[in-house]
Amino acid sequence: MAPRRPLSFQEIILRLQEFWAEQGCLIWQPYSEKVGAGTMNPATVLRVLGPEPWRVAYVEPSYRPADGRYAENPNRMQLHHQFQVILKPDPGNPQELYLESLRALGIDFRRHDIRFVEDNWESPALGAWGLGWEVWLDGMEITQFTYFQQAGGLPLDPVAVEITYGLERIALYLQGVSSVWDLDWDGTHTYGEILKPSEIEHCIYNFELADIERLRELYQHYEAEARACIARGLVIPAHDYVLRCSHTFNLLDARGAIGVTERARYFARMRDLARQVALLYLQQRERLGHPFMRKTLPPPAPAPMPALPIVETAEDFLLEIGTEELPARDLETALSQLSENAPVMFAEAQLEYEALEVHGTPRRLVLYVHRLQPRTRPVETWVKGPPAHVAFDREGRPTPAALGFARSQGVPVEALAVRELPEGRYVGVVRRTEGQPTPAVLTELLPRLIASLKFELSMRWNGSGVAFSRPIRWLVALYGREVIPFTYAGVSSGRETRGSRPRGSPTIRLEQAADYFPAMRRARILIDPEERRARIRRDLERLAAEVGGRVPEDPELLAEVGNLVETPTVLRGRFDEEALQLPGEVLITVMRKHQRYFPILGPNGQLLPYFLAVRNGGRRGLDRVRQGNEAVLRARFADAAYFYEHDTRQPLETFLPRLATLTFQEQLGSMLDKTRRLEALAPSIGALLGLNEEEMHVLARAAHLCKADLATQMVIEFTELQGVIGREYARRWGEPEAVAVAIFEHYLPRFAGDALPQTRPGIALGITDRLDSLVGLFAVGLAPSGSADPYGLRRAASGLIQILTAHRLRFSLSRAMTAAAAIQPVPVSSEILEDVRSFVIGRQRAALQEAGYRYDVIEAVLAARGDDPAWAAETTAGLQQAVQRSDWTRLLTSYSRCVRILRKAESEGSLPASEVDPAAFREEAERALWEAVQTARRQVRPDGPVEDLIAALESLAPVIDRFFEDVLVMHEEEIIRRNRLALLQAVADLTTGIADLSRLEGF
Amino acid sequence: MAPRRPLSFQEIILRLQEFWAEQGCLIWQPYSEKVGAGTMNPATVLRVLGPEPWRVAYVEPSYRPADGRYAENPNRMQLHHQFQVILKPDPGNPQELYLESLRALGIDFRRHDIRFVEDNWESPALGAWGLGWEVWLDGMEITQFTYFQQAGGLPLDPVAVEITYGLERIALYLQGVSSVWDLDWDGTHTYGEILKPSEIEHCIYNFELADIERLRELYQHYEAEARACIARGLVIPAHDYVLRCSHTFNLLDARGAIGVTERARYFARMRDLARQVALLYLQQRERLGHPFMRKTLPPPAPAPMPALPIVETAEDFLLEIGTEELPARDLETALSQLSENAPVMFAEAQLEYEALEVHGTPRRLVLYVHRLQPRTRPVETWVKGPPAHVAFDREGRPTPAALGFARSQGVPVEALAVRELPEGRYVGVVRRTEGQPTPAVLTELLPRLIASLKFELSMRWNGSGVAFSRPIRWLVALYGREVIPFTYAGVSSGRETRGSRPRGSPTIRLEQAADYFPAMRRARILIDPEERRARIRRDLERLAAEVGGRVPEDPELLAEVGNLVETPTVLRGRFDEEALQLPGEVLITVMRKHQRYFPILGPNGQLLPYFLAVRNGGRRGLDRVRQGNEAVLRARFADAAYFYEHDTRQPLETFLPRLATLTFQEQLGSMLDKTRRLEALAPSIGALLGLNEEEMHVLARAAHLCKADLATQMVIEFTELQGVIGREYARRWGEPEAVAVAIFEHYLPRFAGDALPQTRPGIALGITDRLDSLVGLFAVGLAPSGSADPYGLRRAASGLIQILTAHRLRFSLSRAMTAAAAIQPVPVSSEILEDVRSFVIGRQRAALQEAGYRYDVIEAVLAARGDDPAWAAETTAGLQQAVQRSDWTRLLTSYSRCVRILRKAESEGSLPASEVDPAAFREEAERALWEAVQTARRQVRPDGPVEDLIAALESLAPVIDRFFEDVLVMHEEEIIRRNRLALLQAVADLTTGIADLSRLEGF
Repeated sequence: MAPRRPLSFQEIILRLQEFWAEQGCLIWQPYSEKVGAGTMNPATVLRVLGPEPWRVAYVEPSYRPADGRYAENPNRMQLHHQFQVILKPDPGNPQELYLESLRALGIDFRRHDIRFVEDNWESPALGAWGLGWEVWLDGMEITQFTYFQQAGGLPLDPVAVEITYGLERIALYLQGVSSVWDLDWDGTHTYGEILKPSEIEHCIYNFELADIERLRELYQHYEAEARACIARGLVIPAHDYVLRCSHTFNLLDARGAIGVTERARYFARMRDLARQVALLYLQQRERLGHPFMRKTLPPPAPAPMPALPIVETAEDFLLEIGTEELPARDLETALSQLSENAPVMFAEAQLEYEALEVHGTPRRLVLYVHRLQPRTRPVETWVKGPPAHVAFDREGRPTPAALGFARSQGVPVEALAVRELPEGRYVGVVRRTEGQPTPAVLTELLPRLIASLKFELSMRWNGSGVAFSRPIRWLVALYGREVIPFTYAGVSSGRETRGSRPRGSPTIRLEQAADYFPAMRRARILIDPEERRARIRRDLERLAAEVGGRVPEDPELLAEVGNLVETPTVLRGRFDEEALQLPGEVLITVMRKHQRYFPILGPNGQLLPYFLAVRNGGRRGLDRVRQGNEAVLRARFADAAYFYEHDTRQPLETFLPRLATLTFQEQLGSMLDKTRRLEALAPSIGALLGLNEEEMHVLARAAHLCKADLATQMVIEFTELQGVIGREYARRWGEPEAVAVAIFEHYLPRFAGDALPQTRPGIALGITDRLDSLVGLFAVGLAPSGSADPYGLRRAASGLIQILTAHRLRFSLSRAMTAAAAIQPVPVSSEILEDVRSFVIGRQRAALQEAGYRYDVIEAVLAARGDDPAWAAETTAGLQQAVQRSDWTRLLTSYSRCVRILRKAESEGSLPASEVDPAAFREEAERALWEAVQTARRQVRPDGPVEDLIAALESLAPVIDRFFEDVLVMHEEEIIRRNRLALLQAVADLTTGIADLSRLEGF
Repeated sequence: MAPRRPLSFQEIILRLQEFWAEQGCLIWQPYSEKVGAGTMNPATVLRVLGPEPWRVAYVEPSYRPADGRYAENPNRMQLHHQFQVILKPDPGNPQELYLESLRALGIDFRRHDIRFVEDNWESPALGAWGLGWEVWLDGMEITQFTYFQQAGGLPLDPVAVEITYGLERIALYLQGVSSVWDLDWDGTHTYGEILKPSEIEHCIYNFELADIERLRELYQHYEAEARACIARGLVIPAHDYVLRCSHTFNLLDARGAIGVTERARYFARMRDLARQVALLYLQQRERLGHPFMRKTLPPPAPAPMPALPIVETAEDFLLEIGTEELPARDLETALSQLSENAPVMFAEAQLEYEALEVHGTPRRLVLYVHRLQPRTRPVETWVKGPPAHVAFDREGRPTPAALGFARSQGVPVEALAVRELPEGRYVGVVRRTEGQPTPAVLTELLPRLIASLKFELSMRWNGSGVAFSRPIRWLVALYGREVIPFTYAGVSSGRETRGSRPRGSPTIRLEQAADYFPAMRRARILIDPEERRARIRRDLERLAAEVGGRVPEDPELLAEVGNLVETPTVLRGRFDEEALQLPGEVLITVMRKHQRYFPILGPNGQLLPYFLAVRNGGRRGLDRVRQGNEAVLRARFADAAYFYEHDTRQPLETFLPRLATLTFQEQLGSMLDKTRRLEALAPSIGALLGLNEEEMHVLARAAHLCKADLATQMVIEFTELQGVIGREYARRWGEPEAVAVAIFEHYLPRFAGDALPQTRPGIALGITDRLDSLVGLFAVGLAPSGSADPYGLRRAASGLIQILTAHRLRFSLSRAMTAAAAIQPVPVSSEILEDVRSFVIGRQRAALQEAGYRYDVIEAVLAARGDDPAWAAETTAGLQQAVQRSDWTRLLTSYSRCVRILRKAESEGSLPASEVDPAAFREEAERALWEAVQTARRQVRPDGPVEDLIAALESLAPVIDRFFEDVLVMHEEEIIRRNRLALLQAVADLTTGIADLSRLEGF
């Protein structure tokens, strides 16, 4: 199949055009606007809408300004060429067509690691998304394969299959060169000769020259024209302007002129336009009467359902759901649901079997049932008739009631029996439901079983309307030697399974269920996930040990890669030691996140210049696969090195001015404005936390620098490295270590379970940053509502609580917030401050509940100590312990009697005296209580530990009880009465500042 | 060759891609910007620059907003698809490669009329131009074929061949459908199904919706970004913005927002940008070291020049210069130069022959010489020696002088002879140059002969650097049976000519010169232009007569079409009678200008629904050719009808507001502003011309309406119909006929030789319009300078003169200009007015010179009567007659003596008395002169005919002569002297207001 000499770049295009034209695709042209992807061509983003069939294929030179690398990267450029294919509706075998097209290009899948790696695509600007995969060829993404679910914010029906080839990357492989610039374009010129000069020019323009103010104005004009076109109902002219908006936005982004918030706003604006264009298009097609509908053949009549087989003996049963590659996470979900639902549903259906196992790979979910009985278990039920004394007369003869009942049940009256029931003796009849033939039960149960599998994100793909993680392409349902016939998602069950991708997914016919495991073994498919993981773990360790290293524990990654393959083979690749000059976090981030490689650490925990990758398939062509993966990583590292090199030409501090171009929030200004606020606010927060002078210095410097890395290219590219990069660059430019650490720490914790800041400047800065965001964003009306929390304020508040609590830091939210309010560029009313405080306290409430504290305990404490989160947390713990005491009810009751009588009195017009006057006591119990209260007052401080209060209550309880026994509080004489109320008030007041016990259950 | 089923649209593209890839073209992609043509893709407009070789082919969807027809036209759309090919350098046979590509598409040139029709392409925005052809397939332009001469304002070396296929039109033919909308795109969808909705939308946007103000701002931003990119040296980013400028300009143009002046300014701005981009690109390639140079093979070593043949007898000689299709005009020029230069050069070379004929077709220039002698004529020359008396002594013996001379001439002294020369008798010798062999002379003469042919526009095409009208592709030079070897423009002479295009240009080998005429006859090629014209004229008449009509005389068109074919065949096509509802001028303009068809007029001069076209080739496939031509005309008329229909939905007057969007000149405002000025100025001009009340009414209305048609689509499309359309639409909406006519006439004369306005309102309006332009544009500094006259002010001034002169209208330029100045929106100084006046007078000066008047006569009259052109013209005629009189010198001398003595006296401080005082006369001659002067004064009026002056001078001359004989003017007595001077002053003053005779020769 392979051509004698590698195809040139242009020949690849011609071949693909021919291939897809033969598949009935209209050959279309690149669009006349700068687009980021072929998807944006109206031949995709509009034609996928509506009911009409559509097949199209075309090249699309795709411009992504931010991807430019001044032609210094071997395969990353601001301009790359896509080959775009749309198949609507799903032809049923799009993956196979795609693999065939690769063969037409001369790519032999046996010698390569071709993988469908989950990739859920979304274009926020177009309001479009889909589920699918990146296709990896030896680790390099060469294609995006997507089942388009929505475009212009509208659901697609039918769903369209979108195949987007990365032409340069495919050419790299076919030609065996390591840089796009060396690709042969036409047999005469290299790709670099044709495009390198303009690539560099575009980078200079995009990153350095494009005039930000003018771009913003262009955007405005484009948007205005788009709206005018929409108002006039013009689809394509409007779409063109949306594309211009999008490209202009991308340029602004490349210039670093788009803040996080602004980005969201831009997206919302573009999405709104895209949605309106999509609606207009749909209306237009409808007006035209959907002319393309006439171009489809009616679907073939469904084959008649085969007769149910007859099975007489217990047999093994196999259900294999054959799918296109499931995402790793979905595979796990599916297996656990199958393990849970299958036994339940079998049991409900009275199906009896010896054992049941569940297995799965990315392409198959397997239920194997051992010795399934040929009929379901018969069931006996008791049908209750009339009471015995009504059914039979004194002579024991059946009455008309018995006769009637027997008749209604279709049994002779002699068949009636009498049972003793709790409500008396009753006539009845035992009814036996005979067992059903298992095939009949299965044929109805199996579709329900499959339908019971649910996924976080599921997709539709064909006319059946069924949603699943990925398309179901075959179903094996074998009961012994017989097929259990049923249809699901348009697929009919049978006895044919498929081999693995590296072998071309050959059809494998199973004579009987029991052949399945041997067949899979022969096909080198490990259907047991645990077995796959174990094999990978073993090989990882072995290959790491060979170079004197070890693989750090990473169960998450292991689980993921184990679920990405059917035939795992681990390989070790190398990378240039030179790359080790980059910070380890950067390299590991690249390896894990982008490539799902395991790093290898040396004896001292240092990173070694190796990686471990897991391929799908055996050892055939392993060297090529390794080389491929190495080349990919080389490019990735080159990218990181490019950023590092560019960034570190200038001190970290010098990035600060560029923060002015990064909008934090329109009314709150840029990230530079935020930096100024952090500088202003940090000293107050540091003082609240009691930092010493040296720490205050560190804090000030860190506040100054902590956001600078946001303007670096490294962070623009790898957002998750914010803080890490700030720390590294700060070190590099000789900042004190404490400053570097504080810069890093101020983002901690970044996610649930993340580390917390440990240094006091880091803590102070993290708190400062969060408070500024909370107060500022609340002030401009951006408090989280419902599921909308674009600024992550819930996480910010939780982080604040977590830090304070973990370090048991005494703190006053309200004082800190007042300080934060003072430096905002917008007015912050006291109502707003109260809202922020409630919001933060709300987060603590949630955290405490999460930690298992009783709701009422939390409420009681937060009512009193919510302003100081760490203190509130400790108090909650103390109070929770208290309420679990066996004598708690007594303590609480004593106390609550005091409070309740006070309330009652108040409602009747009796207020306590302002002070207790021992002279007005009439009873000993009064005196005793007064003494006890005085003792308690010495013991309990409003800002003291709750345990003191509990101890005090403990002592007070008997005294209070005696008091109520001996004393009539509501004495008719006012002075006496008000003095007694004052005494109780003193008791009640003991809890002040500690907890509002009236909120506890049982109060 | 023809495929079984017609190729779909996409298959045509795939075929062309394959075909040109096989020719070594890089296959490129459409550009990511909206462009008007594939030329603008940097793969053309930049890559053609510089010395590097380049071959490329690609599709280009091309957007030309103004071409949109709301999808109502069968083949005119705002979006069409080009297939663009660049071959650099010229491969030597680009036309043949092109024709082969048509064959690859299944177009059999034997069954079609395939023509290369001159088309000199220019992109004012890109500063690019080239010479070449439209390729016509049965009358429809399917391809542009250009030898690119310049891009970005820079000359190209080597020249690039640009082939631009119109894909839709080719598909129309291949598929045999009559509308692009019915084309099969991919076997499933029609072109209309894919593109018609967006076509209509784009039209609505382009013509109705696009916001003019925003577009202008976009243009500004694009230009600014382009300049920034240029300043930074970024070629492609700058070019992208130039393209955006260009498309934005096109949109503004489609919206009718670009005035004539503004257009020129926009073009200048874009051209300036394009030039800078081109320069940057050249610098960039130079910096890179011209890497593509390494990709060319060195040219093959030239074949050694064959030995000169030996010919002993007189033989016929044939020179055929085989070219690619020469433009009709160039063919004529070439033939007349060949007829003139060949005899001269042959004579100079002493070549003797019996007769010489010159013929030619678009593809060959033929010189045929009958019985050319094998050797040139020997030449005797007389070499003059010393005078005879010096050469010989008294005894007749040779002196040393004679001996020396004889020795120096290499002859014995006896060979000296003596001749009588005008200067005396001299010794000399007859030297005889022997005849040269004719082949040796021809081999040197023929290249010079070809080089002597010059063209108005000539082009380079290959490394020889030779410039010619179109490329020379073969050379036949046969002397009898022998080839005269020489090389010109890289082509070596031989004996092979070629047949006609319809037969595939087969090679025809000639054994001897005399075989040429029979060979051409056999090939059905008429090499005699007169024969072609005669045959066409005959067939035109016959075919017109068949339908009862006649063809109006049109020698220009006849000459042109006769020079477009080698084998003329006239065919008659029909068009729908419905088209006749359009104004005849429109239909005829379309037929003549666009298609070079002859119209047929019926008995009453009405247009009949037929046309006559001349194809190249015989009658084979004539029906298809006719159908093709009919289809083309249908589309053209549909276009015209479209405009007519759109325009006439509203009264002419309602177009006036749109004139506000048509800039006349930035400072002078819009065409609406100009209309307001015409309305204001017309009454003054009418009054100066003495219009009566009714005429004044007509004038006012016509002034109001005369520019309205500029806003109609018809005029926007067919600019040359301005005025015609105004008249037609005015009639249609019921304006008085006189108004309609005046609207039409105000543009007259439109070109040299055009008709003049005949009605007085038409005349007045034409003058008004021209004066407004002249005064206004001068005032804003836009007087013509050098060759720059973008507003056609020279023609305006000439027209003004012509109208006034032809109708002998008395007029005062200065009064009219003062009136025109008063209504300008800018200040007009008196200096400016004087400049305008001088400019207009200058045009009259040129016109009078052109008419053959003596320079001095013109000057004399214009000095006095330049302000009144008609009067000046008559006076010039009169004075010219006078100066041709035999006694003129005497008359002038008498007069000039008077003037000269006055000047001399003045220079000596003697001024004439203020009045003549007869009392101070001393001589009779004084008195006589005084009487004669008084008589003359009664006879001659300053505003009277010049003839009166001449008559007066006649009478005065003898009196003056006597006066000077008898009288000493410079009498010592001051009173007498000054009185005499006053008398002469009276004589001198007779010419005042008539002519300044002192400017005449001989004064």
